[in-house]
Amino acid sequence: MTANPILAEQTRGSTVENIHRGAYVICDADGTVIASAGDIARPVFPRSAIKSMQALAMVTSGAIDSLALTDAELALACASHHGEDVHVDGVAAFLDHIGRGPADLECGAHPPTNSAARKALLASGGAPTALHNNCSGKHSGMLSVARALGIDATGYVERDHPVQAAVRKAIETVIGAPLSEDLCGRDGCSIPTYAAPLQGFAQGFARMATGKGLPDDLAAAAKRIFDAATSHPLLVAGTGHLDTLVMEAFGGRAMQKVGAEGVQCGAIRDKGWGYALKCDDGNIPASQAMVAGLLLRHADPDAAQRDVLERFAHQPLTNVRGFTVGEMRSAI
Amino acid sequence: MTANPILAEQTRGSTVENIHRGAYVICDADGTVIASAGDIARPVFPRSAIKSMQALAMVTSGAIDSLALTDAELALACASHHGEDVHVDGVAAFLDHIGRGPADLECGAHPPTNSAARKALLASGGAPTALHNNCSGKHSGMLSVARALGIDATGYVERDHPVQAAVRKAIETVIGAPLSEDLCGRDGCSIPTYAAPLQGFAQGFARMATGKGLPDDLAAAAKRIFDAATSHPLLVAGTGHLDTLVMEAFGGRAMQKVGAEGVQCGAIRDKGWGYALKCDDGNIPASQAMVAGLLLRHADPDAAQRDVLERFAHQPLTNVRGFTVGEMRSAI
Repeated sequence: MTANPILAEQTRGSTVENIHRGAYVICDADGTVIASAGDIARPVFPRSAIKSMQALAMVTSGAIDSLALTDAELALACASHHGEDVHVDGVAAFLDHIGRGPADLECGAHPPTNSAARKALLASGGAPTALHNNCSGKHSGMLSVARALGIDATGYVERDHPVQAAVRKAIETVIGAPLSEDLCGRDGCSIPTYAAPLQGFAQGFARMATGKGLPDDLAAAAKRIFDAATSHPLLVAGTGHLDTLVMEAFGGRAMQKVGAEGVQCGAIRDKGWGYALKCDDGNIPASQAMVAGLLLRHADPDAAQRDVLERFAHQPLTNVRGFTVGEMRSAI
Repeated sequence: MTANPILAEQTRGSTVENIHRGAYVICDADGTVIASAGDIARPVFPRSAIKSMQALAMVTSGAIDSLALTDAELALACASHHGEDVHVDGVAAFLDHIGRGPADLECGAHPPTNSAARKALLASGGAPTALHNNCSGKHSGMLSVARALGIDATGYVERDHPVQAAVRKAIETVIGAPLSEDLCGRDGCSIPTYAAPLQGFAQGFARMATGKGLPDDLAAAAKRIFDAATSHPLLVAGTGHLDTLVMEAFGGRAMQKVGAEGVQCGAIRDKGWGYALKCDDGNIPASQAMVAGLLLRHADPDAAQRDVLERFAHQPLTNVRGFTVGEMRSAI
């Protein structure tokens, strides 16, 4: 396999200690490549970076209208949230709204991603529940799909369940290519994830940003989902997270979403471009440095946007006593 | 830069999700290469993988004899320990033995690496101290060097302090090459770490394993240090850790030590070989898969040793609900 280029480096003193290779592509809705590096045809598991595509099943199933889903609920369906009160309360309300409860979630429980929320939960003697799972909003959205389809939701995380069939169909429509069961794995939250080329995901995000190449109902829904996510950036991630800070700073111009194992996807909406990026080794801070570098070069950031991006393109590395000993930096 | 080969992979389903490149070398005390992959001349920060080399300053300073250091203390000086009771109590006794206390440690405090010890400390309302720092045994050894040299230990973590000069000299003697201040960084525990080629570290471990190429006093001390570490494997790491399990299984045949950011060093003592390995991206589980693969191929493991190594050469990957979703595996 030809090696992908180095897209991020971690230094110690003035020496490079670690290197992080990867690939990325920015393209428009027609698939024209604006910029790229590395092998963009190799299949990549998009993981949580495409929750906004998975959320389109809430449109194709009719849930968005028949259940009158709110923008906050759509934002939570796109989220890898940090388990802060605003997220846990929001997902509980979402479930209540659709006539379901936490016991219906099949994502499993893990402690809040947010450190203060995690400590507060432990200090109160509480145990993590499925509501704290970063994917609980997406799973609530999937329960709304089952409700709208009028089917039993039990086992909705399984590949052959009608909910996952609807999710898969929505992704295939947006990326314009079939997903392969030979490239199907199980995600952290137990739903299927299909590996496919970065190029397809980037073009899919461009289509969602512009509506071009999509059926009218999906085009309208994609706009509504991106509007919901970019106007509720705290719901999509959490306090201090790159995705939240970038979407806050870009005020609707940028949709940005992390996926596990070093995936970053999004859209520069006013340019009509989508992008997809994967760090070969799965390192998340490295992938954040990479996507910050990508947006610095290609998203025409203003001073405030640049300030946010620079914080992630050059992340100080501190040691146990708080000395700055190096940095994680973008090589894009 | 020419890319190093893929030495570990993480799969999801039947598809490779992440790849981990790196380099390794196995050589004898003369520097003859037994096996290698990738660029073994590029400077690498060895981090904690060479604590046994740093511990030689306890010999050159006279501390080992004048303070009558015990084998358990030597093992702790080589350790990245997990903050279990046996480690914390051992380091407290080490400090007491040399007339020093926890307040003299300049490594900083972090919570115990061992998950049960960490939870127990938090549940008891206790706060992490420098004793819990995985490097506190090494730092106690450095305090013993200052004591033996009859100098003020304050600031012993700084590059220009006589303690670090003695440590640097010991490493240079063992690897047979000067260390460069241009390639000096500050480690997690605040002492200097010098980047140098893997080849030098591998040859240094072979020299320590055999005594060949070393002054008589260092040769004897290296044997005593390796004997101390390999006969106290729990002190060198912690419950369930690769280093502890491998040294337990090999019963003195293998010295094995992890370093931060994906470094693995050691010696196959009965063959007189040393080895050094670095995962390019710093991933620790990947580097463990790599070194397990290396030892499977080159250390002639018996059935029990093979069983331990296979657990790390093929590490199951589980998700939030405990489903096995893939594996981290050696490609060596």
